Parts: sequence; structure tokens; C-alpha cells
Amino acid sequence: MFKPIIGYRSAGFLAYRSSNVEAPSGTRPIIFDTEEYDYGNNYNNATGVYMVPYSGMYLIHVRVYGTDNIAHHWIRVDGDTVTYTYDHSYQSGSTSIVLHLLAGQRVTVDPNFSGGIHGYPDNMVTSFGATLLYVD
Amino acid sequence: MFKPIIGYRSAGFLAYRSSNVEAPSGTRPIIFDTEEYDYGNNYNNATGVYMVPYSGMYLIHVRVYGTDNIAHHWIRVDGDTVTYTYDHSYQSGSTSIVLHLLAGQRVTVDPNFSGGIHGYPDNMVTSFGATLLYVD
Amino acid sequence: MFKPIIGYRSAGFLAYRSSNVEAPSGTRPIIFDTEEYDYGNNYNNATGVYMVPYSGMYLIHVRVYGTDNIAHHWIRVDGDTVTYTYDHSYQSGSTSIVLHLLAGQRVTVDPNFSGGIHGYPDNMVTSFGATLLYVD
Repeated sequence: MFKPIIGYRSAGFLAYRSSNVEAPSGTRPIIFDTEEYDYGNNYNNATGVYMVPYSGMYLIHVRVYGTDNIAHHWIRVDGDTVTYTYDHSYQSGSTSIVLHLLAGQRVTVDPNFSGGIHGYPDNMVTSFGATLLYVD
Repeated sequence: MFKPIIGYRSAGFLAYRSSNVEAPSGTRPIIFDTEEYDYGNNYNNATGVYMVPYSGMYLIHVRVYGTDNIAHHWIRVDGDTVTYTYDHSYQSGSTSIVLHLLAGQRVTVDPNFSGGIHGYPDNMVTSFGATLLYVD
Repeated sequence: MFKPIIGYRSAGFLAYRSSNVEAPSGTRPIIFDTEEYDYGNNYNNATGVYMVPYSGMYLIHVRVYGTDNIAHHWIRVDGDTVTYTYDHSYQSGSTSIVLHLLAGQRVTVDPNFSGGIHGYPDNMVTSFGATLLYVD
């Protein structure tokens, strides 16, 4: 069985919306207000920004569920678009992508719609996480 | 090249529906009847339950394809909702999430709709898997 | 902190469409023409084929965004279907799956629709990647 190296968790987080919220306009990030885990305290649940702690390969995984049948959202690094999920017609959206990220980069999930985002205290239907797979 | 530790596979599985089936009602899990791999024999393809063998960080990945344009489904741990994918309008749904799980916990995928689920002998469009990324 | 073994990146790639393209007919793969990273040079951006460099467990992650409200696509290994994502009604599609693959196998993403596929120079909305999690 694979044994982890001490501290491996210092880069991992998973945060979610615990209540409904209006989608922020412009390119402002969704605030995933509640942390399921955030071992290295690298996600800021007041600003919505994940600060990359170590350069390496990360699995980024996102789910967004809109209240008005629209849930388009970007994943951005330092404000630049990385990818986009286009979700319309009574639908939630999700994607996972493995990125090479540098220490200090800022990862956000930004909505591209007007209207509400679903959040629940006990259901991570709108959530954002990162897992370090390899450090450089 | 990264060399695996002997036994790393003891936690990994991937199972799928090999034929169409009616969605179970209530909060009963989908039975993914056929195992693509199940190295530690931790998924029970009679009950639909994945029994977590080691405490640690797991990538859980799910796909559900309904026959009636609806495929909403939960991921649950010991019966508690972890997340939910809302899929309507002629659509399949999928998500991946990294969770910290404890040995002995039970992970299931539970549908939230009436109607059929697509399954095929050679296409894992309705499937459920787990991969251990780190043990505690 | 987990330290990588030298060469771990030799199996990882992520490629995307940088411009719109017509979906190829038959079972021909989508050509993800631009490589975000391709450490071992195992993805061929002229043919659309990822050649597996080492036998082991891989995370395969895909996103497809069609221009005509349809984005159904298969993931195939040596031409055999592994899974399928059914995306209709004004929608992009995405899935991630962990597969056991053998050195020399060929992984492709094949569309199952007529019409256009969205691509952008700065947005990996139509993209395909693989990450080696464990070697055999």
C-alpha cells in the first residue's frame, strides 16, 4: 500500500456553497463559503481564491448548479481563462482538469450568467476543489 | 518514473451497468453490475456499495445516462449526501470529486428520478469508480 | 510533501482545439491541435491519438463543446468504446475516468454528431488529457 509523505495534504482543499447566492457579475469568482477540507489553508472562503502552494500538477474539480437553468462557468488562473463549461437547459455542470500550476498562482471559478446559484448545507452540488498529484 | 508500492491497487475499482435497468426508488443505489476492475474486491456488485478499505483521499468518478432525458443522481457516503448532479433535457451526467474517506465507510450512487438507466455490455456510459490517491 | 520521481511527467499530456472545426464523421477522432503540455510527446496532434507510454492507471479527462447544441462523444481505446458522454440541448460535455491501460494502446476521443466543435486559442473548452497515477 502506498504510504503518503508527511504533509501531502498541505495542498488539498474542497469548498462548497452552503446557501443560495446570486451569481457575481463581471469576472468575479463564486465564493464557496464552506470548506469541507483545506489542509494547508490555501483557499480563501472570503475571496473565492485558491492560492497555489507548490508548483506541480493539480487535479482541479468543479461543480456548479444554477437556479435558473444556466450554470456556465470558467476556471481561471491569475484571471486568464483555462477552460469553460457550458451548461444550459435545466442542468448542473461539472468538469475536472489536470493543470500544471506554479506556486503563488490564483485559481478561481467565475460564473458567466445572471441569476442564482444553488447551495446547500449538506450537499456539495456547487463546489470547487484541488488535489496535488505531483510537485515539481 | 514513479514506481507503485505493492498493493496500491487494493483500493481501486470501476464498475458499470451492462444492460438497461429501472432506476431504483427511494434512496437505494444503482447496481453497477459488471466490474471493469476491482483490485481489492471492495465493490459489491449485488448491493451497489463500495466499502472504503483504507482511510485516505479518494477520487470518486461517476457517469449516469438515463433513458428518459433525466439522470439526476447523488453520491452518498454512509447514506449522507456528498454531492448531486442535476441532468435533464436529453443528457447524461458526470462528475468527479476528491473526498477524504474513512475505512469502513460505504459509498453509493443513488438516482433521483423515475425511469430507465442505460447500460451496455461494451460502453461504460453508466459507471462508478474510485481511486486511492493517498492513504492516511 | 510528496516528491515526484524523476520522469513522472513523461506520461502526461493536455491538448485542446484552438479553433472551430467540423466534427469528423465515422469513428475518426477529434484533432486537439494545440498541446498545453505533452511531457513525453505521446500525444500526436496531427492524428488525435494518445499512445500509452507505460502500463498503469491513468486519469483520462475530456471536455467537448459543440456549436450546434450537441456534443456527444466517445472515449475509445484501440478503437473500442470505453465510455460515452451524451450532451444535447445547448450544452458542453465532460467526463473523467480512471482506466488501466497497457503500453502501446491508443486512446482517442471520437465525436458522434454532425456539426461544429468549438475551439479557442485561450480556452480549453474542447480538450483531452491523460495523467499517469500509477505504473504497473
